[in-house]
Amino acid sequence: MDFKITDEQELLLESLEEWIEGCGFDQRYFDEHWEQAQFPAEYYKALFDSPFGKVGLPEQYGGTELDFLTMVLLDEKFAELGRPSLTTTMLNIEDIMMFGSEEQKKAISDKVDEGRLPFALGFTEPQAGSDSNAYACTATRKDGKVYINGHKSFITNASDTDLMLTMTRDFSVEPALNAMSLWMVPLNAPGVKIEPMHKIGQRMLSMCEVYLDNVEIEEKDLVGEEGKGFFMLMKNFEIERVLIAATALGGAKRAYNEAVNYANERIQFGKPIGQFQLIQRMIVEMTAKIKACEAFLYATAWKYDQGESLRIDSALVKYLVTRLANEIADDCVQIMGGIGYTEDSISSKVWRDLRTARIGGGTDEILIHAASRPILKEFAKKNH
Amino acid sequence: MDFKITDEQELLLESLEEWIEGCGFDQRYFDEHWEQAQFPAEYYKALFDSPFGKVGLPEQYGGTELDFLTMVLLDEKFAELGRPSLTTTMLNIEDIMMFGSEEQKKAISDKVDEGRLPFALGFTEPQAGSDSNAYACTATRKDGKVYINGHKSFITNASDTDLMLTMTRDFSVEPALNAMSLWMVPLNAPGVKIEPMHKIGQRMLSMCEVYLDNVEIEEKDLVGEEGKGFFMLMKNFEIERVLIAATALGGAKRAYNEAVNYANERIQFGKPIGQFQLIQRMIVEMTAKIKACEAFLYATAWKYDQGESLRIDSALVKYLVTRLANEIADDCVQIMGGIGYTEDSISSKVWRDLRTARIGGGTDEILIHAASRPILKEFAKKNH
Amino acid sequence: MDFKITDEQELLLESLEEWIEGCGFDQRYFDEHWEQAQFPAEYYKALFDSPFGKVGLPEQYGGTELDFLTMVLLDEKFAELGRPSLTTTMLNIEDIMMFGSEEQKKAISDKVDEGRLPFALGFTEPQAGSDSNAYACTATRKDGKVYINGHKSFITNASDTDLMLTMTRDFSVEPALNAMSLWMVPLNAPGVKIEPMHKIGQRMLSMCEVYLDNVEIEEKDLVGEEGKGFFMLMKNFEIERVLIAATALGGAKRAYNEAVNYANERIQFGKPIGQFQLIQRMIVEMTAKIKACEAFLYATAWKYDQGESLRIDSALVKYLVTRLANEIADDCVQIMGGIGYTEDSISSKVWRDLRTARIGGGTDEILIHAASRPILKEFAKKNH
Amino acid sequence: MDFKITDEQELLLESLEEWIEGCGFDQRYFDEHWEQAQFPAEYYKALFDSPFGKVGLPEQYGGTELDFLTMVLLDEKFAELGRPSLTTTMLNIEDIMMFGSEEQKKAISDKVDEGRLPFALGFTEPQAGSDSNAYACTATRKDGKVYINGHKSFITNASDTDLMLTMTRDFSVEPALNAMSLWMVPLNAPGVKIEPMHKIGQRMLSMCEVYLDNVEIEEKDLVGEEGKGFFMLMKNFEIERVLIAATALGGAKRAYNEAVNYANERIQFGKPIGQFQLIQRMIVEMTAKIKACEAFLYATAWKYDQGESLRIDSALVKYLVTRLANEIADDCVQIMGGIGYTEDSISSKVWRDLRTARIGGGTDEILIHAASRPILKEFAKKNH
Repeated sequence: MDFKITDEQELLLESLEEWIEGCGFDQRYFDEHWEQAQFPAEYYKALFDSPFGKVGLPEQYGGTELDFLTMVLLDEKFAELGRPSLTTTMLNIEDIMMFGSEEQKKAISDKVDEGRLPFALGFTEPQAGSDSNAYACTATRKDGKVYINGHKSFITNASDTDLMLTMTRDFSVEPALNAMSLWMVPLNAPGVKIEPMHKIGQRMLSMCEVYLDNVEIEEKDLVGEEGKGFFMLMKNFEIERVLIAATALGGAKRAYNEAVNYANERIQFGKPIGQFQLIQRMIVEMTAKIKACEAFLYATAWKYDQGESLRIDSALVKYLVTRLANEIADDCVQIMGGIGYTEDSISSKVWRDLRTARIGGGTDEILIHAASRPILKEFAKKNH
Repeated sequence: MDFKITDEQELLLESLEEWIEGCGFDQRYFDEHWEQAQFPAEYYKALFDSPFGKVGLPEQYGGTELDFLTMVLLDEKFAELGRPSLTTTMLNIEDIMMFGSEEQKKAISDKVDEGRLPFALGFTEPQAGSDSNAYACTATRKDGKVYINGHKSFITNASDTDLMLTMTRDFSVEPALNAMSLWMVPLNAPGVKIEPMHKIGQRMLSMCEVYLDNVEIEEKDLVGEEGKGFFMLMKNFEIERVLIAATALGGAKRAYNEAVNYANERIQFGKPIGQFQLIQRMIVEMTAKIKACEAFLYATAWKYDQGESLRIDSALVKYLVTRLANEIADDCVQIMGGIGYTEDSISSKVWRDLRTARIGGGTDEILIHAASRPILKEFAKKNH
Repeated sequence: MDFKITDEQELLLESLEEWIEGCGFDQRYFDEHWEQAQFPAEYYKALFDSPFGKVGLPEQYGGTELDFLTMVLLDEKFAELGRPSLTTTMLNIEDIMMFGSEEQKKAISDKVDEGRLPFALGFTEPQAGSDSNAYACTATRKDGKVYINGHKSFITNASDTDLMLTMTRDFSVEPALNAMSLWMVPLNAPGVKIEPMHKIGQRMLSMCEVYLDNVEIEEKDLVGEEGKGFFMLMKNFEIERVLIAATALGGAKRAYNEAVNYANERIQFGKPIGQFQLIQRMIVEMTAKIKACEAFLYATAWKYDQGESLRIDSALVKYLVTRLANEIADDCVQIMGGIGYTEDSISSKVWRDLRTARIGGGTDEILIHAASRPILKEFAKKNH
Repeated sequence: MDFKITDEQELLLESLEEWIEGCGFDQRYFDEHWEQAQFPAEYYKALFDSPFGKVGLPEQYGGTELDFLTMVLLDEKFAELGRPSLTTTMLNIEDIMMFGSEEQKKAISDKVDEGRLPFALGFTEPQAGSDSNAYACTATRKDGKVYINGHKSFITNASDTDLMLTMTRDFSVEPALNAMSLWMVPLNAPGVKIEPMHKIGQRMLSMCEVYLDNVEIEEKDLVGEEGKGFFMLMKNFEIERVLIAATALGGAKRAYNEAVNYANERIQFGKPIGQFQLIQRMIVEMTAKIKACEAFLYATAWKYDQGESLRIDSALVKYLVTRLANEIADDCVQIMGGIGYTEDSISSKVWRDLRTARIGGGTDEILIHAASRPILKEFAKKNH
C-alpha cells in the first residue's frame, strides 16, 4: 500500500488553488449568487475555458484524461475551496463516454469548449426515486419522430442548460428494469416547461420540475442501447455517489477550517475556546472523521481505477462519508456559536449545503437497500 | 403523581388553536414574512389584543395570571401550530414583574395593551456570551443623567421594539459578578445604531447588532437593584431556557406531524413508505423522544410552580430537549426526501429554525458548564 | 399535572431501603451469587416473607394491592439498590390475577406465602421470538389428560421454580394468532429437561433451555381461555415492558451514583476528574437522561392506572429507556476508567446486566415493529 | 496511491491463518482459558516457536524485520481469527530495539526464542494514568544497587511473565516530565507482590496490581537514558495505540462475520432476518465502518513507515477505530438476539473484550487531550 498522492496530483491541486485565486471571481460573487439562487454562469464559462474544464474528457476530444481518483481529489478540492465544482460535468462526460454515440461524444466536447454545462440528468420523477416500477415518462414513435411525455422532478441544473438526459419507460416491456431508455431531450423545445424549486442549500445550482408535453426529438437522440436505461443509470450511480461523497467531504473540510481557526481566535473566559475540552472533543472527532473519510474515499476511487465494480462500495462510501460530513458541519456551527447561526459564517452555509448529500443520488435509506443485499449474498456464497 | 392536563388547560389550548385559525393570518402571510425576514407586526398586534396577549401579566394590570406550566403548554402549542409565540413577551413580563418598579410594571402593561413588543433583552456582547468578566458596556452618571456606551450583539427583536433591557458593568466594582446592572434603554434615542444580522432560521424575529454611543437615559430607567444585574440575568435564564425547550419541542412536533402524514401518503415500491422499517424506526424514535421530552419539560415547569429553583433543571431540560428536537427535525427532513430539502416543506424550515435552540440562551457547552458543578456539589454533600 | 410522589409512595420506598439494609444479606452475598450464577434463594425467601413479597397481590389473598405506578417505583428502587427485584413475581401475579382461575389464584398466593418463585414464563422457542407463526410447542389431549411437547428457550428462572406457564399451539387452527393457549406445566415432572444457558449479565437469575417431552398435565392446568394465549401474551407484554424499563432505569441510576461519586473523588492532574469538561459532559447528559426517563416512565405507568392501553407506549418506553440506560452504563464504565473494566466496579456489572434489556421482552427491532404500525394508523385516522 | 496489500503481505496473512488452523489449539482451548481467566501459555510457546513469534525482531537477532503496516495487518488478523495476538510482544520488541542496550536486546531475543513473554509494561499507578505529576514509584541507589519502591496498577501480563519495564520518578528533578526513568525489574524477586484484578473481558491476559517493596536491581537494568522515561513512554504510545486499534478492528470483524452469517441463517417471520431493513441497516453501517477503519488504520501505519511522527494520528486512529469497533460489537450482539446475550456467541465475548480498548493505552478522554492541542497549534502556525 502507498497512501501518498503523486507529485502530479499535488501539482494539479495546487494549480487549481491558484487558478481559483486568480480567476477573477471573489467570495462576494459566489455569496451573492448563493443568496440570489443564481447560476454562476460567468464563472463556469471561465472554468470550462481553463485546463480544468476538460478534465475527464479523452484526449481525442481535446481533454485531459484522468484516473477517477484524481477526479475525486479535484472535486473534493473545489468544495474545500468553496467553489462550484465539476461534479455534474464530470458525470455528464463519464456517462456519454461510456454509453454515447460518436456524434454525442463530439457534441458534449464541443459544448464544454463553448463553456456551457453539457446537460441535466433527467431521471427522478415525483413518484419515482429509486423505484423503477414507478417511472411513468414515455417515448412514443410517430412518423419517424419520437415524442417524450412526462414529468421529471428534482432535476439539477435544468434551468441553466439546454439538454436533459431523460429516462423513459416502455410500458409494453416487463419487467420495468428492461423497459428503460435514455434520450437527450432539448430543454428549449416546444412542450417543455421548467419550474425551479426552492432549495435550502446548494443554491447556486438550480433544482427544477421539468414538464415534458409531447416534446419532439429524433431517433439519434437515443443514448446507449434501448431498454438498457436502468443499467446505465446504475453505472452512473456508482460514479455519482463517490463524487457526492467527495464534495461532501470537501465541504466539511471547509467548515472545519473555519471552525478550528475560530477556536484558536475566539476568547471566552480569558482564553481561546480551543482550550476548553468540550471544543477540543469536537475538534478531535472532526479531525479523525475527516482522516477516515479521506482514506475510505480514496480507496474506493482507486478500486474503480482497478476496474472493479463499485456497486456496493459507492453506496457504502456515500452513506458513511455524507453522514459524517453532516455531523462535522453541525459541530462547526456549534463551535461558531451565534455567528454559526448567521449567513456570515461559512459553517452555516456548509451545514445547509451538505444536507442534500444524504438525500440526492440515493437517500441513506436507498443506499442501505442497495448495499445490504449484495453484502449478504457475498457472505452466503463464501459459506457454501 | 397525575399526568393529566386540567380541563382549563385543555380549554385554553383549544381556544388558542381556534384563535389562530380565525385570526385572519394564514400560512402564506407567515411564509412571506419568514422568507423576507420581516417581523409580523400585524399578527402580533392582533395577538396582543386577544386574550392570549396578556398571559402572564398579573390581574391588577389587566392580565391573566397563569402558572408556569400552563405558559409552557401555550408556548409549545404556538410552535406546534407554526406561529410566532409569546416567548419573548412572557419573558419580558416575568422579568419586570420580578424585578421592575411599579412604574415599569405599569409601562410594560400599557405597551402590551397597545399591541407592541415590550422590549428586547440586551445582554450578549461580541466578546461576552456567558462570561461575565468580558462584559464591556457601561453606564456613566453625569449631571443627573445616565449615559450608556457599548456594543450589544445577537439581540433578538431589537429592530422591532423601542426599548432594550441593557446590562452594563461598573468597572470600579470587583468581582464582575457584583458589577452588573440593568437599564431600560430607548432604541429610538440619539446614539443608537441597529444593524440586523442574517439568521439562517427563525427569520420573522430579527437578531441585531446594537451600538450604543452615549445614549442618554434617566436614573429611573434602572431595573432592579444596582449591581444585581447578573443575578437577575441568572433568574431570567431559568425561565428562558425552559421556554426555549418548549418552543423547540413544539417545532419538532410540527415537523413530526408533517413527516408522519407524509409517510402514510408517499408511495414508493408500491406501498406507503411508512411500511418500510427504516422509516418506522425513525417514527418510533421520534415518538418516544417527543413523549419523554413532554414529560420532562412539564415536570420541570411544575417544579418551578412549586417554588423550587430551576438552576440545574432548566439547563438540563434545555440541553436534552433541544438536542432531541434537532434530531427529530433532521429525521423529518430525511423522511420528506427531496421535498425535505426545499422550502416547500415544513420540516426544512423547522430544521433551520431549531438549530438556534442549541446556541441561544446558553449553548450546549455553557449548559454543561452551568449544570455539572452544582450536580457534583450535591453529590459531594450527600456523601458527607 | 402533579409530579410529586405521594407520602405513601415515599414511605414505601424508604421502608424498602430499610428492609434491604436490615435483611441480613450484604453485598458480598449478592456478588458471590452473581459470580457463581446462583439463584439467591434465601434472599427471595426472606423477601417473600416481608411485606414487599405480596405486593400486587389482591387483599383477599393476603396481599397489598398497589397501583401500577407504585409497583414501577418499587421495581426501579430494587434495581437502584442493586438487589434482585420482584419484576418476575409481579408479572406472574398480574398474569394470573387477570387470566387465572380461582384455584390458580389461590395457588400462586400460597406459593408466595411459602417464599417461592411462582412460575417461569414459557413463551419463547428457538425459532419463535415474536413471530407467532413459528411456535411449535403443542398440547395434545388423550384419555382425559393433556400432553405437552416442545422446546422452550431463553426461559428465565426455569431452574429455580417448579412451574412454567407454557404457550402451546393448536396446528388445526388458523390463523396462528387464534391457535395459542397457556398451560401451567410442572417442571419437576417426567419428560422435562432443563439446561441453563450462560448469560453475560443478570447472572443471579437463570436463563434456560426447557425440553418438554410428553409432559402430562390436567385440563385444569389451562390458564385463561383456550385459543386466547397470544392475546394474553400481548397483555403480559404491556406490563413486562414497562417493568423492564423500570429495572433498567434503576440499574442505570446505581451505576450513575457510583460514577458521579468517583468523579468527585478521583484525582488526576491535581484535581477531581469531575472538574474536567469531558467528564462534566457525561454527567450532565446522564442526569438529563435519567430525569427524562423517570418522567416518561412514570407517565406511562400512570396511564395504565387510568385504564388506558399501553400497547404503543409500553413499546416506546422500553425502547427509549433501555437504550438510554445502556448509554448511561457505558458512560459510567468510561468514567470509572480502568476500574470500570473490572468486576470490582458496580458500573461494569450494570453495563453487563443492562445489555439484556434491549433484547429480552421484545428486541429494539420488535418494539419498532410493534409500535410503528399503530402510530401510523392513528395518524391516518386523524386525517380522515 | 495504491491500496493493494502486497503479495508478500497476503501470503503472510494466509500462512498465519494456516498456522492457527494447524497449531493444535482449538476454540475450546481458548474458550476454557477465557472463562478460567488463564494465560494460554502452551499456545504462546508454540507461537513463539513459529515463524510469527519473531516478527518485528531484527534479523541479527534471528527475527523477521517487518514494516509497521505489515505488523498491523498481522495483529488485526490474529484478532479477527479470535486468537491472542503478538501485540504486547511486538511492543516489547519495538521498545527495546529503540531504547535498550545491546545486552537487553540480546536478552529479549533469547526470551522469545524460549517461547516466553518478554516483559510487562509497568507504567500506570493507582493515582497516575496519564498525569506524569502523579507518578510516585521511585528508584533509590544504595551501595551500588538500585532499589525500586512503589505500586503499579492495571499491569497486563504481570502474573505471566518474569520482568516488568518499570517507570520510576526522581523527586529531586523538576519538571516531572524530565524525572522519569525506565528499569527492567524482575517480578520473581523478593519484595514483589502481584495481585490479579478481575477483568470483564480480555480474560486470557491478566491485569494485575504489582507492589514493589525495596526490590533490588542493578544499574545495568536501566533501559534507555535516565530521565527520558516519559519521552520513551510517549514513543511507546504511538505504536501501542495503533496496535490497540488494529486489535479492536480485528475483533469487530470477528463479531461481524458471526452476525452477518447469522442474519443469513436465522429465520423469523418466514424469512432470514437479513431481509429486514432494521438488520440491513446495521449490516451496512458495520460494513462501511469497517472499510473506513481499515483504510484509516493502514494509512496511519504506513505514515509511521515513512518516518513521520504518529503523535497526533495514533491518538486519532485509536479514538475513532476503537469507538466504531465497540459500536460494531454492540450491533452484533443485537443481531444475535438472545444468543448474543450468552457466552455461546462470539459477539458477546468480543463486546466484552473490546470495551477495554476505549480505556487502556489512553482513555478516549486522554486521547482528546493529547491530540487536540497539537492540532490547534498546527492551525495557528498555518495562519501566521
